[in-house]
Amino acid sequence: MKPRIHVITLAVHDLERSLRFYRDGLGLASGRIIGTEFHETETTPAGAIALFELDRGLFLCLYPCSDLAKDAGIPIQGAVSGQFSLGHAVKSREEVDAVLAGAVAAGATLTDEPHDRPWGIYSGYFKDPDGHLWEVIWNPALEDV
Amino acid sequence: MKPRIHVITLAVHDLERSLRFYRDGLGLASGRIIGTEFHETETTPAGAIALFELDRGLFLCLYPCSDLAKDAGIPIQGAVSGQFSLGHAVKSREEVDAVLAGAVAAGATLTDEPHDRPWGIYSGYFKDPDGHLWEVIWNPALEDV
Repeated sequence: MKPRIHVITLAVHDLERSLRFYRDGLGLASGRIIGTEFHETETTPAGAIALFELDRGLFLCLYPCSDLAKDAGIPIQGAVSGQFSLGHAVKSREEVDAVLAGAVAAGATLTDEPHDRPWGIYSGYFKDPDGHLWEVIWNPALEDV
Repeated sequence: MKPRIHVITLAVHDLERSLRFYRDGLGLASGRIIGTEFHETETTPAGAIALFELDRGLFLCLYPCSDLAKDAGIPIQGAVSGQFSLGHAVKSREEVDAVLAGAVAAGATLTDEPHDRPWGIYSGYFKDPDGHLWEVIWNPALEDV
C-alpha cells in the first residue's frame, strides 16, 4: 500500500448538525452536502455525505453512521470515543487555546485542558458532537504547520 | 481552524502487533516505535507510539488505547468499528483487489467485498486488527492518486 490517505470519513448521527459544527463552528469553509441523489436501497446505503476539501489533497467526509456501517458491511454501533483522534497542529500556545475555545463555542466538549506534555508539545483535546476526538497541538519541533 | 490535519492517531491494543500489520503487512515502510523513554505516571500516559510518515506531511500514529484515553482525558473504551474509516485511493480496479488481498494476507478482515457503488466508485473495505476500517477505492473521477 502506498503511504497515502485520501479521505478521513467520520461517522455522524446528524449530517446537518455536523456540517454546521465543522463549517460554521470550526470554520472549514469548503463544507457542502453532496450525493443526496443516491437513495438507500435494500443492498446499498444512502450516498449523502458532507464533504470538506482540506489542504494537500485530503478530504474530510461526514457520513451517517448507519450508512457507513451498511457501506462497510458491519453492524451499526453506537458512538464511542477514543478509537482514534485527529491531530491539528498550530503555530503557538495561544493558537492552541484559541482553537480549543472556538471549538467549545461551536458546541464541542473539551476533554483535556491544554497543557505541556512530557514529549515536548503543548496540546489539548476536544470531542465533536459525535464524540470524535481532536487534539490541537503546538509542537515547537514541527516546522511544517 | 485551518483546513489541515497533520496526524491520524489510531487506538490499538498491541503496539507491536499493529506496527507489524502496517509496516510488514501493508508495507508502510517508515514505521518505527518512538517515545519509549516517556513512562506512564499518575497524571500522564506512556509516550510510546508507532509513527508512520505518509505522503504530503501526514502522519499515521498508533497509540495504545489506554494511553490515548488517558492523554485525552476520557474513559477507556473497548474496540468498536464503524466510528470512522480511512480511504485509500488507487489507480484501477485490479489495484483495489490487490490491496485488499494484501491486507487480508497481513491479517486484516474483509468486511465488504469490492464492488461498484452507486456513486461511481469501485471499492471494498477491510478492518485492521483493532477493527479500524479502511476503504480501498478506485474512483475514475479522481486524478490525484
